[in-house]
Amino acid sequence: MAINLYDQANELERALRQSDEFQQLKNMYDEVNSDESASKMFENFRNIQMQLQQKQMSGEEITQEEVEQAQKAAQLVQQHDKISKLMEAEQRMSMVITDLNKVIMKPLEELYGSVQQ
Amino acid sequence: MAINLYDQANELERALRQSDEFQQLKNMYDEVNSDESASKMFENFRNIQMQLQQKQMSGEEITQEEVEQAQKAAQLVQQHDKISKLMEAEQRMSMVITDLNKVIMKPLEELYGSVQQ
Ligand SMILES: [Ca+2]
Ligand SMILES: [Ca+2]
Repeated sequence: MAINLYDQANELERALRQSDEFQQLKNMYDEVNSDESASKMFENFRNIQMQLQQKQMSGEEITQEEVEQAQKAAQLVQQHDKISKLMEAEQRMSMVITDLNKVIMKPLEELYGSVQQ
Repeated sequence: MAINLYDQANELERALRQSDEFQQLKNMYDEVNSDESASKMFENFRNIQMQLQQKQMSGEEITQEEVEQAQKAAQLVQQHDKISKLMEAEQRMSMVITDLNKVIMKPLEELYGSVQQ
């Protein structure tokens, strides 16, 4: 990879690391991780989510019981102050990443767009 | 999104657009697109690839005939000078994008990595 490209990527990495969105995400993670009951509840929620996703992707059937279990776990974390704040911070970070990707990938979108016409 | 983050993304976008890898990809695309028989052959190959991918993702069975059709189309494009150069340029571009993402996503990888431990 050309040096200029690598330099620019490193500059963007530093800007991302210093951004409010990343700093807030980091703080919220630390908050949840230093709280044993919160981190266990969050981990349990993530595990349930992942299991359902894997089942969906492999085409396996998801039972009514599993859906209800996932809904209960989601309600629990949404009612938890620290976890809900962490999840909001994750969503904001995810929106930033999406926006960054849109900007960076413009040259390729233009190229592939023009090819598909 | 913070101004600095946006500025850095724009700088990276410019560097990507000016990179040898992108310029070569663009040239190879123009080469193929300005050659009617090459562009049709390439389009046909891409369509076959996409159809197979969609079938795989939806869990549909792929017939032996479809596998052979895809292999033949792949052989044709690999033997085509302009198309094989385009596909090599695409692979190089794709490696650059992967490298860029690794650099930019370091803060998030560090964060999530530490959580999963
Ligand atoms: Ca710079
Ligand atoms: Ca800069």
